[in-house]
Amino acid sequence: MDCSDFNITVVGLGLIGGSMAMSIKKNIKPKHLWGIDIDNEALDIATASGIIDDGFTEPSLPLQKSDFVFICLYPTATVNFIKKNMTYFKIGAVVSDVAGLKGSIIREITPILRDDIDFIGGHPMAGNEFKGIKFASEKIFEGATYIITPSSRNNKAHICVLKDMILKMGFKNIVEMTPEEHDDMVAFTSHLPHIIALSLVLNPIIENKHICTGGSFRDATRVAKLNSDLWAELLLENGSNVVKHLETFASNMQEFKKAILNKDDRYLRYLFAEGCRLKEELELNANTPCKG
Amino acid sequence: MDCSDFNITVVGLGLIGGSMAMSIKKNIKPKHLWGIDIDNEALDIATASGIIDDGFTEPSLPLQKSDFVFICLYPTATVNFIKKNMTYFKIGAVVSDVAGLKGSIIREITPILRDDIDFIGGHPMAGNEFKGIKFASEKIFEGATYIITPSSRNNKAHICVLKDMILKMGFKNIVEMTPEEHDDMVAFTSHLPHIIALSLVLNPIIENKHICTGGSFRDATRVAKLNSDLWAELLLENGSNVVKHLETFASNMQEFKKAILNKDDRYLRYLFAEGCRLKEELELNANTPCKG
Repeated sequence: MDCSDFNITVVGLGLIGGSMAMSIKKNIKPKHLWGIDIDNEALDIATASGIIDDGFTEPSLPLQKSDFVFICLYPTATVNFIKKNMTYFKIGAVVSDVAGLKGSIIREITPILRDDIDFIGGHPMAGNEFKGIKFASEKIFEGATYIITPSSRNNKAHICVLKDMILKMGFKNIVEMTPEEHDDMVAFTSHLPHIIALSLVLNPIIENKHICTGGSFRDATRVAKLNSDLWAELLLENGSNVVKHLETFASNMQEFKKAILNKDDRYLRYLFAEGCRLKEELELNANTPCKG
Repeated sequence: MDCSDFNITVVGLGLIGGSMAMSIKKNIKPKHLWGIDIDNEALDIATASGIIDDGFTEPSLPLQKSDFVFICLYPTATVNFIKKNMTYFKIGAVVSDVAGLKGSIIREITPILRDDIDFIGGHPMAGNEFKGIKFASEKIFEGATYIITPSSRNNKAHICVLKDMILKMGFKNIVEMTPEEHDDMVAFTSHLPHIIALSLVLNPIIENKHICTGGSFRDATRVAKLNSDLWAELLLENGSNVVKHLETFASNMQEFKKAILNKDDRYLRYLFAEGCRLKEELELNANTPCKG
């Protein structure tokens, strides 16, 4: 697909937005690639290094001329940006986002979206523990999965163009699901492991003793240092899904506690065997291409 | 230190025992290095590849001539081996073990140990997800920590020789603690993360849906496939420590649940900040040499 006469704008030149701009410039080669950010320094870095053609703190100008807009902001900021700039988008523009929650964004945007704008929700499952354009690299997308949450309202050709761009950016798989399925899944696969990492390190034993940790502890606590602004939004907005999965997890832990307190060797081995089976199932699924 | 006129025996040529034998042969160069195992195949592999000088299924002969014995068996088997072969050990032999629990072993062995035998408990914090001598490699010790749990009963010169051997085997740090401190620590740093990994995968969602997992989920569930025989022993024998840390962890998770249900953004950010601080403390400790 040839996107060479598109104007594309990336809103928010952080780790994901910066990496997307980099990859779009290199692999999609649009007519113009513009960046919008409230941070002049991020715009200067992006312009100076040729990641974008031009940078703007004032959105109206680039939005009026952009065929495709990727909004790479936190969930609440994504909604606010669209609401505030609704009048500026080019007629027929395709708008997508990368926020880690989809249900609330779609719910808030749908009733107020201009009829001619096509909004397709997305979530690139990529990143690292750093933030900001200084750490941006198109390499973070290699082999990663990109979830999109299209609806019947979306133009099929636009979905097709978006998918083509995603694959050109270096993603390996595209998975389609509903916004509700997405939010339920990330509560389990991402929000819960982050709460686990924090709950593990929130133990005074870490301050009082010299702890020798092995690989299992290091791996389980890797994500304990997180971005408070983003994560407070994610956990509070996705609260009911997170609490549901937290309860299932806590009840599984209670089964281990019960087996240990009852010295129930047989039940413990049953739990091990079930866990092993499901872990293998998971690994098998991970190796199955899940391109939607 | 010159150990070239020592005879050393490794009991149990699995992943750890095999790797230790490999490293002892190469870096300590004892007069003789023997292996004891109930599995003839393991002995054949070890002898054929020159890891040991000779292998035995019957312990009496090598034990009678060994100055140093490393018992590389599961906790219960370690105790049983020492009890059963007590009469065979050479007079004045130094015996050490590598089991992941120290309290129960020391408690069971101490009252029955021959006065002339010096038993020093040990736990190399090394390994991988495989088992058996086929996966043995001295590389698994590189940069790892070795915990020893010496008592006032131990001969200081023997502790010194053991430490020298451990460093020659490639370990980076040696940490001394009491058997009780050791078991409390591993309940937190190893047993709990394994229960967490299992409790995460024990969710029917894994069978019903196509799950797209990110790094945090993959890391937190890496150790879900475990060796049932070993782990049933570890969790049941270390039950009270495991349950204690499981309860602290579960109560931390309840705080997150409370914050989410109350939509308490401020408390959530407080938990994030505390977690971040403790995680940084942990990383700082991990970079401090903890050679005992």
